[in-house]
Amino acid sequence: MKSLTEHLWFNTSKRQELKNITRTVENLVKESGVKEGLCLVNAMHITSSVFINDDERGLHQDFTAWLEKLAPHEPIHAYHHNDTGEDNADAHLKRTIMGREVLVAVTDGLLDLGPWEQIFYGEFDGQRKKRVLVKIIGD
Amino acid sequence: MKSLTEHLWFNTSKRQELKNITRTVENLVKESGVKEGLCLVNAMHITSSVFINDDERGLHQDFTAWLEKLAPHEPIHAYHHNDTGEDNADAHLKRTIMGREVLVAVTDGLLDLGPWEQIFYGEFDGQRKKRVLVKIIGD
Amino acid sequence: MKSLTEHLWFNTSKRQELKNITRTVENLVKESGVKEGLCLVNAMHITSSVFINDDERGLHQDFTAWLEKLAPHEPIHAYHHNDTGEDNADAHLKRTIMGREVLVAVTDGLLDLGPWEQIFYGEFDGQRKKRVLVKIIGD
Repeated sequence: MKSLTEHLWFNTSKRQELKNITRTVENLVKESGVKEGLCLVNAMHITSSVFINDDERGLHQDFTAWLEKLAPHEPIHAYHHNDTGEDNADAHLKRTIMGREVLVAVTDGLLDLGPWEQIFYGEFDGQRKKRVLVKIIGD
Repeated sequence: MKSLTEHLWFNTSKRQELKNITRTVENLVKESGVKEGLCLVNAMHITSSVFINDDERGLHQDFTAWLEKLAPHEPIHAYHHNDTGEDNADAHLKRTIMGREVLVAVTDGLLDLGPWEQIFYGEFDGQRKKRVLVKIIGD
Repeated sequence: MKSLTEHLWFNTSKRQELKNITRTVENLVKESGVKEGLCLVNAMHITSSVFINDDERGLHQDFTAWLEKLAPHEPIHAYHHNDTGEDNADAHLKRTIMGREVLVAVTDGLLDLGPWEQIFYGEFDGQRKKRVLVKIIGD
């Protein structure tokens, strides 16, 4: 069994940001030499997300507005977590909706993605250094 | 390491539909010859879902009503994504709640599911051809 | 390829409860002897969850209040599922938000978790025996 482990670093300039990381993950799959296997991509922080959806700007605005409605940032003190001095309780909830991880099949040495599937890093409490883990295993 | 890759095709007659695909996945596990491993089942489209829950008709009605409340289809133009000519922004959000994929352990050559766990394809923008990927790896 | 399969049993004293199971999963990874691979942890019941987030009491209160807002337990008869004699339709929805499973990379024989990542069992319809599956595969 072959395996590859890589940690990707992010430091977004805005508090919330969605970044397409598909190309980076594709390159790691090639580097791994795995032809048949699985590729795990997960946020290593609990206020960010890795998810798969469409790379369409309007949709990303919709996601942002929708998450704000389901888990509003304010009022800050509506959240017990923020009594610890944090102001990011909403980011924990937003990331829960969007998901921590995706698992993508590797077939014939390539990510086995559907026609519109793109892998995103979703940041909900940015402006600090954070990591994403890519783990590829297979033959 | 053994592996099996299969693409399942769906073309639902209704816009929204939940289909139990457990039997199909079980048969693929047998066909794979894998005794100990992992079975990934994922939607390859970003307006549909693969998830695990109970096969109970009332619960499925509850899921449908609940998703409509959390991510309503209308008004169509409340979503930026729909400015592209689409009317399915809500389906992207609904699928996000329900999830893209499930990963099920394969133990002694069988899906290692709990007593009520059933695997479903969730369609939120149907009446067109779409795929689900099944990838099984192990020994 | 090595593999380890373990079923963990839970019987919570309260209807809803979040339990940190990270230590237990870490010990199973050591026991498996797997150095490079994947560790799946999933609820085997459809009204409970396995998820990763922060072990902070205030945040857990926030999760509980938020889930009650998104998928309220009452009124019981607002849910078709509860016409079957159950009163747990809300627990199926709450678990859907929190997720069924997590997949964690195993690197150098250890769970490859970020600094605040902890694995939780989330119970939304407790006071009965339920299982979580841990499946570890790799070399």
